[in-house]
Amino acid sequence: MSMVDIINKKKLGYVLTKQELSEAFLGYYHGEIPDYQMSSLLMAICMKGMTDEEILNLTDIFIHSGEILDLSQVNGITVDKHSTGGVGDKTTLVVASIVASLGVKVPKMSGRGLGHTGGTIDKLESIPGFRVNLTEEEFINQLNTVGAAIISQTKNLAPLDKKVYALRDVTGTVESIPLIATSIMSKKIASGAEKIIIDVKVGNGALLKTQEDAIEISRIMKMIGSRYGREVETMITYMDIPLGTSIGNALEILEVVQILCNQENNYLVSLCKALSSKMIQMALGKNINQANAMVEDSLKSGKAYQKFLEIIQAQGGDLSLLRVSSNKQDMISTKSGHIIGMDAYRFGKLSLDLGGGRKTKEDKVDSSVGIVLKKKIGDDVKIGDILCTLYLKEGTDPILDDITSYYTFD
Amino acid sequence: MSMVDIINKKKLGYVLTKQELSEAFLGYYHGEIPDYQMSSLLMAICMKGMTDEEILNLTDIFIHSGEILDLSQVNGITVDKHSTGGVGDKTTLVVASIVASLGVKVPKMSGRGLGHTGGTIDKLESIPGFRVNLTEEEFINQLNTVGAAIISQTKNLAPLDKKVYALRDVTGTVESIPLIATSIMSKKIASGAEKIIIDVKVGNGALLKTQEDAIEISRIMKMIGSRYGREVETMITYMDIPLGTSIGNALEILEVVQILCNQENNYLVSLCKALSSKMIQMALGKNINQANAMVEDSLKSGKAYQKFLEIIQAQGGDLSLLRVSSNKQDMISTKSGHIIGMDAYRFGKLSLDLGGGRKTKEDKVDSSVGIVLKKKIGDDVKIGDILCTLYLKEGTDPILDDITSYYTFD
Repeated sequence: MSMVDIINKKKLGYVLTKQELSEAFLGYYHGEIPDYQMSSLLMAICMKGMTDEEILNLTDIFIHSGEILDLSQVNGITVDKHSTGGVGDKTTLVVASIVASLGVKVPKMSGRGLGHTGGTIDKLESIPGFRVNLTEEEFINQLNTVGAAIISQTKNLAPLDKKVYALRDVTGTVESIPLIATSIMSKKIASGAEKIIIDVKVGNGALLKTQEDAIEISRIMKMIGSRYGREVETMITYMDIPLGTSIGNALEILEVVQILCNQENNYLVSLCKALSSKMIQMALGKNINQANAMVEDSLKSGKAYQKFLEIIQAQGGDLSLLRVSSNKQDMISTKSGHIIGMDAYRFGKLSLDLGGGRKTKEDKVDSSVGIVLKKKIGDDVKIGDILCTLYLKEGTDPILDDITSYYTFD
Repeated sequence: MSMVDIINKKKLGYVLTKQELSEAFLGYYHGEIPDYQMSSLLMAICMKGMTDEEILNLTDIFIHSGEILDLSQVNGITVDKHSTGGVGDKTTLVVASIVASLGVKVPKMSGRGLGHTGGTIDKLESIPGFRVNLTEEEFINQLNTVGAAIISQTKNLAPLDKKVYALRDVTGTVESIPLIATSIMSKKIASGAEKIIIDVKVGNGALLKTQEDAIEISRIMKMIGSRYGREVETMITYMDIPLGTSIGNALEILEVVQILCNQENNYLVSLCKALSSKMIQMALGKNINQANAMVEDSLKSGKAYQKFLEIIQAQGGDLSLLRVSSNKQDMISTKSGHIIGMDAYRFGKLSLDLGGGRKTKEDKVDSSVGIVLKKKIGDDVKIGDILCTLYLKEGTDPILDDITSYYTFD
């Protein structure tokens, strides 16, 4: 069947066979199908959805486009963690440090920013020297010595997903439950961990907007996991407001340091503790209270922070060279009142517009830009108060927008 | 707004502003928006549709991407005719001759064939000497002296539509009523005629499958016309079988001669008379019965044929030099029965394979080849009867296919 026929079949709402999915997606992978046909098919999938069988078939095609990482040489239980992404989401860095400090192996392959949401790899690359591309041998060695390694998806793991993911990002085809589930799970299965926890984010700033969508994607991801004999747990968490106080790559690394040094106490910190506890529970067979006590101890004792520094050092990063832009701009409130809401999407979009994310595949990210939130939900604000501070690209002009409209007042 | 935001807005079913449509489509025209983003937007448009306001705005963007032909120097009412095209469709040549013979100006820009459908320009070029490329001045002069001129597009009319159409063709985004209407009407408005008749073809092989779709596209095209002060009428006609008895460039010119010399009486002839009558009604303010009587008189008196010869002569053609291949092959029926269907698409494809059309834009057409149908719907056939005669390229071997399968018998 020709690609145009396959596109038309999905456009009309019919179910694609594994053969048809292979022709389209492997053809795309091998460069026989151009971007413009794949983006058209992806949009049709976004709008008509996929059956469970199609999802399992596409996941299988993604997985077998590359290798499956063999983690049998890692000593200990491996637990992978994934978040469906959000604005200011730096949980992976905190959680990997905590969990690895407690003896569980965290083999973590992370992604780059997608649309208005950031990516862990972009954040780590703001640390000068940090190598996000380790060889398989280096990765396994680091898991055995340090306990955690956070790397970019290596070339030979679900490479087809990587190519499709980059195209979705720039063609308005990100927000599709079957495509999100397929993309995440193909990488997770190929990454080789025995147990997988997925942080399913819901809300205005997240890819998934409703609780129903989050429940549906949880169901699909568990279904895919069980097909490959992997234990998958999900946590549905909320993302109506930016996570923590910073948005932007280098700024978020600084915030991780503050959290691991016990200088923060907010929803983000609670979320990191909850995810870490769940992972400890899955890996070590503890009950959730025991797991939680271990997590608290790791943070209080500084073991988690120590582990974070070890990870950075092992991957060649030099935290002392991290820099944020000196071109700062305080954004002033033009209203007074009590803040009851923040538009996470617009904050993420603003960070993207400042240069902290990608609008096309070729865009280069400026890790020194971003936003530090000074006022958040629950705060009282007077006219003239600083709502947030922008870190603009060096040498660029101030932003004229009134940020006040990003907040809801009662 | 970024292209991804524009795509997402349409994907979610919101109405795009003229500003957003301009950013997307003019950006695409100028090479700032890549194919893969445009195809994704086109698929979202296919699936979510467009409001009347969006359709008017997009048409306007298409029109102003190029020039608009000025026909104010033509003395008399100008009426343009468009058909969505088909196999064996030579209505333009018959209709232009009839209508011009009755004092109405027919400024006709036609296209070449691509794929299984033929094009009027290719048919005219089978007449040795015929010039399809007149200057704008020659075109207007001929309209004033002869009354009709049929040429290949002179000016750069709606070039953005051309670029978008080429992409739609390969991305499964052809079958969209708003996009089809926008594409046709932007070219018709830019072509400058005061009145326009559109032959909307419906049927299994046509772009429009149902009567409802044909009615909807008629409504949209009239609406677009009225925005530019142009009177638009549509005729919904059927295109399940090849039109007339010949397929192939020179063969179709011979068929036009036969029709204009009153030697034919079939559905094609009725269609030509109906289209001509409608055009006369529109241009001269006659009622349809008066118009029809004038058309019949033009044909019977030989005035229409005379006008056809004048058009050919004015454009440098010499009908006496027209030739068809002498390498003929009669195709025999291997079944007996009553014919109830013919596969227009396969006949068009066969003519293409004989060398009468183009598979790529660069292919050279052999105007001497084609097919003459001896049996059509309604005929009774015995085994061994001649179904059709093929005109093969000189010096090539006979075709081995059994043509019987192109027909449906009861």
